[in-house]
Amino acid sequence: MNHAVLLISCADNKGINAAVTAFIFEHAGNIVHADQHIDEQSNTFFMRIEWDLQGFSLSREQIADAFQPIAEKYSMLWELCFSDINLKTAIFVSKHLHCLRDILMRHRAGQLPCDIPLIISNHPDAKSVAEDHGIAFYEFYIDSENKQEQEKKQFDVLRSHDIDLVVLARYHQILTSDFVDHYVSRIINIHHSFLPAFVGSNPYLQAHQKGVKIIGVTSHYITAQLDQGPIIEQDTVRISHRNSLGDFVRKGQDLERVVLSRAVRWHLERKILSYGNKTVIFD
Amino acid sequence: MNHAVLLISCADNKGINAAVTAFIFEHAGNIVHADQHIDEQSNTFFMRIEWDLQGFSLSREQIADAFQPIAEKYSMLWELCFSDINLKTAIFVSKHLHCLRDILMRHRAGQLPCDIPLIISNHPDAKSVAEDHGIAFYEFYIDSENKQEQEKKQFDVLRSHDIDLVVLARYHQILTSDFVDHYVSRIINIHHSFLPAFVGSNPYLQAHQKGVKIIGVTSHYITAQLDQGPIIEQDTVRISHRNSLGDFVRKGQDLERVVLSRAVRWHLERKILSYGNKTVIFD
Amino acid sequence: MNHAVLLISCADNKGINAAVTAFIFEHAGNIVHADQHIDEQSNTFFMRIEWDLQGFSLSREQIADAFQPIAEKYSMLWELCFSDINLKTAIFVSKHLHCLRDILMRHRAGQLPCDIPLIISNHPDAKSVAEDHGIAFYEFYIDSENKQEQEKKQFDVLRSHDIDLVVLARYHQILTSDFVDHYVSRIINIHHSFLPAFVGSNPYLQAHQKGVKIIGVTSHYITAQLDQGPIIEQDTVRISHRNSLGDFVRKGQDLERVVLSRAVRWHLERKILSYGNKTVIFD
Amino acid sequence: MNHAVLLISCADNKGINAAVTAFIFEHAGNIVHADQHIDEQSNTFFMRIEWDLQGFSLSREQIADAFQPIAEKYSMLWELCFSDINLKTAIFVSKHLHCLRDILMRHRAGQLPCDIPLIISNHPDAKSVAEDHGIAFYEFYIDSENKQEQEKKQFDVLRSHDIDLVVLARYHQILTSDFVDHYVSRIINIHHSFLPAFVGSNPYLQAHQKGVKIIGVTSHYITAQLDQGPIIEQDTVRISHRNSLGDFVRKGQDLERVVLSRAVRWHLERKILSYGNKTVIFD
Repeated sequence: MNHAVLLISCADNKGINAAVTAFIFEHAGNIVHADQHIDEQSNTFFMRIEWDLQGFSLSREQIADAFQPIAEKYSMLWELCFSDINLKTAIFVSKHLHCLRDILMRHRAGQLPCDIPLIISNHPDAKSVAEDHGIAFYEFYIDSENKQEQEKKQFDVLRSHDIDLVVLARYHQILTSDFVDHYVSRIINIHHSFLPAFVGSNPYLQAHQKGVKIIGVTSHYITAQLDQGPIIEQDTVRISHRNSLGDFVRKGQDLERVVLSRAVRWHLERKILSYGNKTVIFD
Repeated sequence: MNHAVLLISCADNKGINAAVTAFIFEHAGNIVHADQHIDEQSNTFFMRIEWDLQGFSLSREQIADAFQPIAEKYSMLWELCFSDINLKTAIFVSKHLHCLRDILMRHRAGQLPCDIPLIISNHPDAKSVAEDHGIAFYEFYIDSENKQEQEKKQFDVLRSHDIDLVVLARYHQILTSDFVDHYVSRIINIHHSFLPAFVGSNPYLQAHQKGVKIIGVTSHYITAQLDQGPIIEQDTVRISHRNSLGDFVRKGQDLERVVLSRAVRWHLERKILSYGNKTVIFD
Repeated sequence: MNHAVLLISCADNKGINAAVTAFIFEHAGNIVHADQHIDEQSNTFFMRIEWDLQGFSLSREQIADAFQPIAEKYSMLWELCFSDINLKTAIFVSKHLHCLRDILMRHRAGQLPCDIPLIISNHPDAKSVAEDHGIAFYEFYIDSENKQEQEKKQFDVLRSHDIDLVVLARYHQILTSDFVDHYVSRIINIHHSFLPAFVGSNPYLQAHQKGVKIIGVTSHYITAQLDQGPIIEQDTVRISHRNSLGDFVRKGQDLERVVLSRAVRWHLERKILSYGNKTVIFD
Repeated sequence: MNHAVLLISCADNKGINAAVTAFIFEHAGNIVHADQHIDEQSNTFFMRIEWDLQGFSLSREQIADAFQPIAEKYSMLWELCFSDINLKTAIFVSKHLHCLRDILMRHRAGQLPCDIPLIISNHPDAKSVAEDHGIAFYEFYIDSENKQEQEKKQFDVLRSHDIDLVVLARYHQILTSDFVDHYVSRIINIHHSFLPAFVGSNPYLQAHQKGVKIIGVTSHYITAQLDQGPIIEQDTVRISHRNSLGDFVRKGQDLERVVLSRAVRWHLERKILSYGNKTVIFD
């Protein structure tokens, strides 16, 4: 499979769709996926278009230049990707390893098209898992004193590996906005509550004390504001008065695995466009 | 069907279950439902027990007195009800009538074992619906000036009808704590968000602006604190970036109907015990 | 709102998307929805495209002729609709009226863009509901002797009202293939099981006896084979050993209402393309 | 935690509940869970009662004898278990290892209170997983010729390990009724369809061809009839026309893991009573 994907957003206007599809047709591309969305409040046009490169009359290197005039005409924000180029993905984790294990299992099963060259943690717990999978493991112990310094080192490691995507698989440290600014729309977090309910720490305990009848989890892009970034995916599960806090955790962790993996897969398949505090998922 | 129901709560202790079931057996009752729950944090015991009165050796009038010694021994809070005595239920509504219509339809279909002698509103919109069903309709226009005075009149109407349960079927007025205090655990509200997210007004708009991927609704008992009473039932539905605010409302209203009717039915069937800000649902 | 919708299916080929969008752009139309799907097994291309007619350079009458050459080039099956032309919809019902009532309620709330000139039944039960809504009611009692004769009369009534869509809202008669052939992909049924489980009569009883932990309902187009037509929508709800057959019915009817109304709405908004025994839902 | 659990079924009668709870109270036991269910069609009474053994005046060895007269009086089928005695569990698997891995992960996380001394397969694929977890692995290649002979060997292995529970974690061989008869209500299977739909092989392919909008999975006890044993748990997930057969498999496998683990956990915690082709889940 050898596909190109264009992700486009711009002010809505007549002819955008026609211009993009004509561009692909004129160079003999066969469109395999095309979807558009218009946000009426902001009058913004979003598009995802994917086509087979077999028989396409432009080489990969030529596509961006050839598309540039169309992009300029409509003042597009756009991104061109190729389905056979895997994103380089780093996983951050603390002491709960269920999401990490799940990602690695799915990766091995071919469900997550990415390379995972490194795992970073503020604790040693994930070390043996990393080793079992032949993945480099970096431990950066973090306390109130050394946070900025350690984050700087984390950043250097990420840069040295050309990391495209950071997955926070239950990483229990708040990233500084300096760090976040380097990876806008490229850090995916799993928060173990149905946001915006139960922001912050111990959401299962908060939910248990509140007496809710359903709990949920949320995967979102990280922004400078805690637990406020654009939501990618959520899911919920029913609980009852019989369920102990331990049951909340167990049921919730089943959701965390599934929801984080969906968000990561959509990102890797370039199916997400984020704008403001929202996302469009072209699934 | 001619059943008695005991709802019990007290500090947990050995022998409670045995004492209650022995009481029923000794008077030749056949238990048709028995369920207990222990809240470990507060060490509280909850029980719902329902038995067939056919062949029971005590008359209805004698049961409470006969049970009193057991209740005292364990310092129980308890309530005795009979399945063939319908609760007198008043419905409060404003301009959105979908929940009202739904309750009346289910009532007519025999799904809600209650009497509905009156509908109260701060607007005239529901008048014809009330008339179609042969139910008395009272309109109490409310503004910032006359609120207490009008609430006083509402209360008089409720009292004159011996109302047992008040259902707020999208009633858009905040009740004063004076009013609420008269009907502790006897006012059921439907809030059109997944509480504790999106408290207050316009929750669908709040959810739309937040960019959530799932919306929910919550039915709860009213307490003096806005949208903070014990949650009885919640449900959720998936939405996507394609859904307009109108879609949120449409999908949410489908949930509102179902969730409110479940909460009301459980209350009518005496399946709810509330304690602190939580509920036990013996379903 | 004054939109045109094109529903297209044909063998997949390069340039179809470009040709269709160019056609709209060249006549100054603004696309508000465009979605495509390719069924890889049959190599079939499906498209739904909707555009604003304001400023469009062709009159409604001219559009089909102008589009014809494109349609011929790609051997398209296609349908052109206008969002402000309501489909004329007939509802068939027997003795269970919950789906009928629900459709009428949604229709009144503006959620179903159609005209409902008539209700047809093999029983008199729905008569007063029809009258309350000012809708013509036709009763055709059906037994083993008179089925074909009565169906012929039903068909005449439908034709005299130029009916576009037939909704079987729990109509408990099997239609003959003669009748069905006149309304291919234009008769929507609600079957109260999670098809293909529990085909035929009494599916709730079948489910109760089987001991399933979840029940469902299915809305589908009617074909000559009983309960085998293309599935439009399904939904499920959890049940437990505590639930009586009556609970199955109550919970299932809540699903029936929602699922049938979704299927009807999608059809009315021209969001469904059916092919073979499958459907594409452009939602 | 040191609890006793009684699972009881018998013809319904007055006084059963009282007799059982009195028995526990008279020996100074504190009931921590008590739930009953009456199947009205067969007039069968089911009960699960769990009590703390701390302070209980009977030793474990004495309980059964002391309870015997009550059991005889009501002609009970009954089972006495202790929460700190783990069931010895064997896992059967073929080539798909996701359920096996999931069970082992949950076991390691303390979510499944059992011992897993062995894994049996008709293929070598799971060998390294077994070794990683220090679990004995037995491979019994099976073809049409050697089935009975190999099953006999499997049975000997199970017996030599005193196996209490067999979990078929995607084991793609049909067990003979000889084998099944030795483990009535003690073999749990996961079938990757929403039974009774799509019995037999390749259910995801069957579902994909049928065009359903929701797929499901089913965990059930094995009986002599293929895919017909008492259902323990089911769950479903929504799919769309966009989903390929590969997506069905991926989404379905997420369900398989969760549903099988729920069924196994309930069995291990003695929360399941099966009767006829149904189960009561005391959750």
